[in-house]
Amino acid sequence: MPADTIGGGQERPKGAQLWAKGAPLDAAVHAFTVGEDFLTDLALVPFDCTGSAAHARMLAGAGLLDPTDAAALVAALKELQGEALAGRFAIAPEQEDGHTAIEAALVAKLGDAGKRIHLGRSRNDQVLLALRLLMRERLLALAAQTAGLAAAFLAFGQAHAQEALPGYTHLRRAMPSTFGQWAGAYAEGLLESLGDARALYAKLDRCPLGAAAGFGVPLPIDRERTAELLGFDSVQRNPVDVMNSRGRHELALLQWLGGIAFTLEKFLWDVALYSTEEFAFLDVPPAFTTGSSIMPQKRNPDVVELARATCGQLRGAAHIVEQIATGLPSSYHRDFQLLKKPLLGALQDAAAWLGVLQALVPALQIKAEAAAEACTDELYAAHAACQLVKEGWTFRDAYREVAAELAAGAFEPDRAALSATHTGGTANLGLAAAEAELAAHRAWIDGKQAFLRGKLEALWETT
Amino acid sequence: MPADTIGGGQERPKGAQLWAKGAPLDAAVHAFTVGEDFLTDLALVPFDCTGSAAHARMLAGAGLLDPTDAAALVAALKELQGEALAGRFAIAPEQEDGHTAIEAALVAKLGDAGKRIHLGRSRNDQVLLALRLLMRERLLALAAQTAGLAAAFLAFGQAHAQEALPGYTHLRRAMPSTFGQWAGAYAEGLLESLGDARALYAKLDRCPLGAAAGFGVPLPIDRERTAELLGFDSVQRNPVDVMNSRGRHELALLQWLGGIAFTLEKFLWDVALYSTEEFAFLDVPPAFTTGSSIMPQKRNPDVVELARATCGQLRGAAHIVEQIATGLPSSYHRDFQLLKKPLLGALQDAAAWLGVLQALVPALQIKAEAAAEACTDELYAAHAACQLVKEGWTFRDAYREVAAELAAGAFEPDRAALSATHTGGTANLGLAAAEAELAAHRAWIDGKQAFLRGKLEALWETT
Amino acid sequence: MPADTIGGGQERPKGAQLWAKGAPLDAAVHAFTVGEDFLTDLALVPFDCTGSAAHARMLAGAGLLDPTDAAALVAALKELQGEALAGRFAIAPEQEDGHTAIEAALVAKLGDAGKRIHLGRSRNDQVLLALRLLMRERLLALAAQTAGLAAAFLAFGQAHAQEALPGYTHLRRAMPSTFGQWAGAYAEGLLESLGDARALYAKLDRCPLGAAAGFGVPLPIDRERTAELLGFDSVQRNPVDVMNSRGRHELALLQWLGGIAFTLEKFLWDVALYSTEEFAFLDVPPAFTTGSSIMPQKRNPDVVELARATCGQLRGAAHIVEQIATGLPSSYHRDFQLLKKPLLGALQDAAAWLGVLQALVPALQIKAEAAAEACTDELYAAHAACQLVKEGWTFRDAYREVAAELAAGAFEPDRAALSATHTGGTANLGLAAAEAELAAHRAWIDGKQAFLRGKLEALWETT
Amino acid sequence: MPADTIGGGQERPKGAQLWAKGAPLDAAVHAFTVGEDFLTDLALVPFDCTGSAAHARMLAGAGLLDPTDAAALVAALKELQGEALAGRFAIAPEQEDGHTAIEAALVAKLGDAGKRIHLGRSRNDQVLLALRLLMRERLLALAAQTAGLAAAFLAFGQAHAQEALPGYTHLRRAMPSTFGQWAGAYAEGLLESLGDARALYAKLDRCPLGAAAGFGVPLPIDRERTAELLGFDSVQRNPVDVMNSRGRHELALLQWLGGIAFTLEKFLWDVALYSTEEFAFLDVPPAFTTGSSIMPQKRNPDVVELARATCGQLRGAAHIVEQIATGLPSSYHRDFQLLKKPLLGALQDAAAWLGVLQALVPALQIKAEAAAEACTDELYAAHAACQLVKEGWTFRDAYREVAAELAAGAFEPDRAALSATHTGGTANLGLAAAEAELAAHRAWIDGKQAFLRGKLEALWETT
Repeated sequence: MPADTIGGGQERPKGAQLWAKGAPLDAAVHAFTVGEDFLTDLALVPFDCTGSAAHARMLAGAGLLDPTDAAALVAALKELQGEALAGRFAIAPEQEDGHTAIEAALVAKLGDAGKRIHLGRSRNDQVLLALRLLMRERLLALAAQTAGLAAAFLAFGQAHAQEALPGYTHLRRAMPSTFGQWAGAYAEGLLESLGDARALYAKLDRCPLGAAAGFGVPLPIDRERTAELLGFDSVQRNPVDVMNSRGRHELALLQWLGGIAFTLEKFLWDVALYSTEEFAFLDVPPAFTTGSSIMPQKRNPDVVELARATCGQLRGAAHIVEQIATGLPSSYHRDFQLLKKPLLGALQDAAAWLGVLQALVPALQIKAEAAAEACTDELYAAHAACQLVKEGWTFRDAYREVAAELAAGAFEPDRAALSATHTGGTANLGLAAAEAELAAHRAWIDGKQAFLRGKLEALWETT
Repeated sequence: MPADTIGGGQERPKGAQLWAKGAPLDAAVHAFTVGEDFLTDLALVPFDCTGSAAHARMLAGAGLLDPTDAAALVAALKELQGEALAGRFAIAPEQEDGHTAIEAALVAKLGDAGKRIHLGRSRNDQVLLALRLLMRERLLALAAQTAGLAAAFLAFGQAHAQEALPGYTHLRRAMPSTFGQWAGAYAEGLLESLGDARALYAKLDRCPLGAAAGFGVPLPIDRERTAELLGFDSVQRNPVDVMNSRGRHELALLQWLGGIAFTLEKFLWDVALYSTEEFAFLDVPPAFTTGSSIMPQKRNPDVVELARATCGQLRGAAHIVEQIATGLPSSYHRDFQLLKKPLLGALQDAAAWLGVLQALVPALQIKAEAAAEACTDELYAAHAACQLVKEGWTFRDAYREVAAELAAGAFEPDRAALSATHTGGTANLGLAAAEAELAAHRAWIDGKQAFLRGKLEALWETT
Repeated sequence: MPADTIGGGQERPKGAQLWAKGAPLDAAVHAFTVGEDFLTDLALVPFDCTGSAAHARMLAGAGLLDPTDAAALVAALKELQGEALAGRFAIAPEQEDGHTAIEAALVAKLGDAGKRIHLGRSRNDQVLLALRLLMRERLLALAAQTAGLAAAFLAFGQAHAQEALPGYTHLRRAMPSTFGQWAGAYAEGLLESLGDARALYAKLDRCPLGAAAGFGVPLPIDRERTAELLGFDSVQRNPVDVMNSRGRHELALLQWLGGIAFTLEKFLWDVALYSTEEFAFLDVPPAFTTGSSIMPQKRNPDVVELARATCGQLRGAAHIVEQIATGLPSSYHRDFQLLKKPLLGALQDAAAWLGVLQALVPALQIKAEAAAEACTDELYAAHAACQLVKEGWTFRDAYREVAAELAAGAFEPDRAALSATHTGGTANLGLAAAEAELAAHRAWIDGKQAFLRGKLEALWETT
Repeated sequence: MPADTIGGGQERPKGAQLWAKGAPLDAAVHAFTVGEDFLTDLALVPFDCTGSAAHARMLAGAGLLDPTDAAALVAALKELQGEALAGRFAIAPEQEDGHTAIEAALVAKLGDAGKRIHLGRSRNDQVLLALRLLMRERLLALAAQTAGLAAAFLAFGQAHAQEALPGYTHLRRAMPSTFGQWAGAYAEGLLESLGDARALYAKLDRCPLGAAAGFGVPLPIDRERTAELLGFDSVQRNPVDVMNSRGRHELALLQWLGGIAFTLEKFLWDVALYSTEEFAFLDVPPAFTTGSSIMPQKRNPDVVELARATCGQLRGAAHIVEQIATGLPSSYHRDFQLLKKPLLGALQDAAAWLGVLQALVPALQIKAEAAAEACTDELYAAHAACQLVKEGWTFRDAYREVAAELAAGAFEPDRAALSATHTGGTANLGLAAAEAELAAHRAWIDGKQAFLRGKLEALWETT
């Protein structure tokens, strides 16, 4: 009898698709249908095990499953999860997806108890739950990395709070600024994304299980119990809306990453620019550069460029999800299968990207002298006009006066005379306020992570 | 002397650009530079007047402007705003933008006092403020429309809570559902967007003024006071971040609209489908249809199709903003000028779209009998499997048993035996819970709108 | 009796929609349905008149219309086209679109003959024809502008063929280059787009009329004759494919503009960069700059930035079209109405943009000395390695040797020793070959434009 | 000494990056820099070997490489290519990319001769050449599949040329059509893409090698010879343009796939719709469906849905490339590395997708009777109006008369009276003309493929 391996080496007959009813399936068609599910689902298997364990416990609590069967299923799912996390769980192509592989493994381990796990659910809500659990966990992890990066920007800003840097508008020297003001801006941008993370978490913090194929099930399942076991704030009530949220949440998460990329792309562009021979305000340390295959003299800021390109790549992943998930009537369509790959890929890319940037920011070396020299007299023209205002001029007339002085080559600013002391000015950067906000975000992230850890530990405990 | 009209008919010399220093400007180049600013800025002028009034009051409070001048400026700005709202304020192409037109009008009305208004700010933060005020107001107005639409879906769902409708997966009949479950799903999707609206409001609820060109100003301006006068929760601290948020907030607002479109596109697709001769579950009333120029028999659901296309159009507007605002270093670039048109266009389109849908939903006529007839026996196959489970079968074996009955043509479901009583099931739609959430959102919107009305009334009051 | 104006001031009863059959239409719904068609269609009216004239002539030729009626229709359409081109033709909102307005005007002018014009066509193929004619004309006009711009780049390259400019990779100085090589690259990019223009023209060079609503008509119309009268190469055969090409051709045209933008964005970015104080290789002449409202010293390269942002805007317009036109089954849907605005807007923007760039390129001033000074010794490292190869070293060893010299500060290149004489090298730019290709493209454009002018003149001639 | 495997098991020291000059490289940073290059490059290795062989032959011909060395290099490259095609060539992560791995393997095999291969080129033009060769080959292969699919549509159309099918507009029954007209439309759409393929091939048919890092090399290389050896039509002259075309060509290829997807998405949507219980005009054979995990009765058209979602996925891949490749100055940036993955992924997806559709089209089963029954009297309303015109009515009056008959329930069309005999009409589908065009395209594809096979065989021949 032909057998094929699923990870740990168990034997299992071929053709084990749950819905198999004997119709012939051409191999190429099957391969196209399965796509890369047997790969992408590997990332989902641990979350699917968690969701299935909660489902089993709920079924037992609702009198729909024998408590002994439930305990056996939870124990077996724990084992499978362990195998998956250790990289020892594989999904055979003919099993189509991880859900099938898990059910098959449970049947192989437990017999009839395994055949009872799918009561009151469909693969439609099962995969939604696994994705929801995964997105919830990754959101917190990425938010923690984002917070770490914001902290790095604030530390950089603090260290160079008063070191001069020309402020640019239209890529032209405009007004005096500092490295502190520059770095602080990126911290602020990331703080905004951390605020968004909380709202996004609230979107994800509802349990989809029980929607089944999208219309509920004729059984007295206890959706509130499942939600509670998994640490969700509430149940996502309407089963049709549950199906309609496939793609909607993926898109929201990727657009959130796009927001972080929006901020960091500007930083990376600045670093690419400020580290040129021409600007020369920053050095990218050698560890973040590579060389050329033809030009012996070159050190190229590859890390900076690749991190910049990752910004576009993340936006592009959101576009793929948008393209696939829109243009459709309500409820489930198999089109949704293709949402998994861009989501999982982008989450992995984002983690690597934030990790490298957390290393890059503190490693950047400023060239304080060159930057200060670039703060030439002209940058103080607006300052000089403000001084004239203090002497009674209207601003518009003062502006014209300074313009005339500049045109005549007679402009000599009193650099010390005025200083920007308002909130956010170079003499009042507001980094402490930003640090306080950051601390609050970090506390929230830590709290959520601890809460979920506790919930999931309780779920797996033998009772 | 050549003169040109600006709305109300005042005369004003040509060549009034604030930065004019005599360089020749070819007409075509000027036209390209100005673009459609003199049109798009018309929508911004009322908000610019509001922002300028707060700026004048703050300057006076900080001792940077004579209180008499400030009072005169506020009074004149009130007049200009009135003219703008009445459609009597025009921007001449040679004035480039609304900011210049307003300053010119103030100088024309008040002389030197007008020349003092631009102290401590730049057009860069001025336009950001006007846009922020506009986006804040429109967000609340669009959220109110969205809430109204959600209410219409809930009313529809309540009215047809128990009327049968086949539930579809893969566009194939799947399980029994109801019109109530179907309509409730759209209310839930919109509730999620209403939750997002609050987070988005928080992003917009910070005052950018004082960032000036992007690096602050060497004057003791009181940014907290400006924020307070305009009803902002706080100051957007870092001036570089203020500039970096240009495009970021526009994109966030358009992506929020994209989220609403994500939900409504499915509804519109369903209506397009369910109102065909083939599905025949719904009638689109004649008032929402048009005819054909060649086929006398046709009534086409044009409103439904145009509303569906608007979903893609709104996503496209977000793409334009994304294209323009990304790929740039930090701080201000003139590229940002082109962000105004897609933003303003999309906000206008969205308001018309939500308005029409608020009329469409209650006007939809269900064809209850046809829909009930389409709920054929096969839709109860999963129900029957569940019943077997109650008799002791494992779910997987029960599934196979029912499949065998179906194949043998021997399937006769007991439709009354089981009912979905869990949260969100057809017998427990959860519409009341959705209504309670909706009421909370509406209270929040109303509260914010009342608060802002109060703030702005106080701003314009003679003191 | 209520009347409303259509351009020239004729009176006409309200409610003149072609399909009006008495159903009530709420004003807001009607406004939403009509959208901006009565504005966007103004651009289409002249092309619609042309198409209608050919249709009338064909009908007469096929014996489906009295020759006298046909002559009267052609004469009246010529008048209407004249009015439209002179800006004296208006479409009343209650007429929905230009097609209705034209038919109404023909009926008003000619009575029964006007009622015969719509035989054998639908608005579906009528608008497709008008759009096809418009796109065909604009494509040639934009291609001519693109060719002019390519010529400007070649002239610039010729003028500065041997003036040194550092070549950059990774935004780092890499190898010696010249202004000629730099400018030549943009000419080459545009030549590629000119090649694409020919393939695109071939796509558009098929006549859609006769598809009617998308399934043809039961009349012996002569589609080949219509095509011939309008100067099309052939008939677009399949009526369903005609409908399916709505959006497909718009997207192809906008993606073609996106290709031009792909090339020019790099040029504009280079100019923005090379004209900074830091790079200082180029000056943007004052006529292409504007000033700051707060900083008296500033001259900002606004034209360059706005032209760069236009690149993203054009890509965004393609995205809107893609969003609206995809996600739909075959044949006509009213969604297509929303394709007109992004298409027409982008075509207008592109013409202004290419016009300004044709002025900018010859106006750019190079700073030859500064650019030559920036060609420092290190740029010759690869050259030196090549020299060692001539002395027998392997390239990889030579590379390591030069790297060692550089590290030791002992690198002194012999700049004159080697020169890039291969095709495209700095000593062999290949500008003449590019000019020859350009001339061929220009001849093709001129030929097509002359051919179409001849065809259309013949169409309007009294026979 | 630590060693690591590269495919075939050769030993090689670690740290073999070509540019390695001893600087420390943190492992995480290195991993981020390398990304998935060591995987994506596997697809490029065979093409890189081909390009390198031509380069070696050219160097020898130009007197820059000893003929014996050249012969040894070509022989070794042939071996490496064989290993790569057999899946026995691996790239170690520390080698960064395939180019490095190939050079390292050549040095290992040949010693000094291996160190000579990189003379006169850079990895920048090397990867461009490998990508160009790959894109050229894949374009022809995908065009051949597209032609096969067009043939399947034509055969389907021929087989069902006269079988009735309602024609829909606005998703409402509109006019009589046939399965032949319907299928023919997709063939026509694909023919348009085949025409585009030729223009796209012309873009790709120029040899980039010799651009080196983007500015040429100071050596008398013979770029025309390399082009000729590789079967390119000409040299891509300007080295800066060569670099600027990175991303431009990828985008063009993916947009071409997007054009095919534009056509096929409509087909797939139609099939999804026409195979519902409600429309019931088509059956999707069981081999192209799968079942449900919860509903025993279901057969879902998964292949159709996944193929439809692939359309959006391909558009999304183009967006990723667009996002990464735009927003940059001219010349090479490391950002381009991230272009490889979406390109290669999309090419692979497209091949599988076209393959499955080639199987699906001939397998579709029409339900002729049901489709004919759906062609109800109303569909002949326009036909009836045309008949009245033949009796002397104006079209507009005839339209109103038929509308009145319909309203009165008195409409009885004479179905046989009129038939659409014009080009593309149901009685004159034009399938033979489409077949002739298709044959011409297939001849072109075959010719190009044969030509390239001949060229590449000659390249590898021992001389």
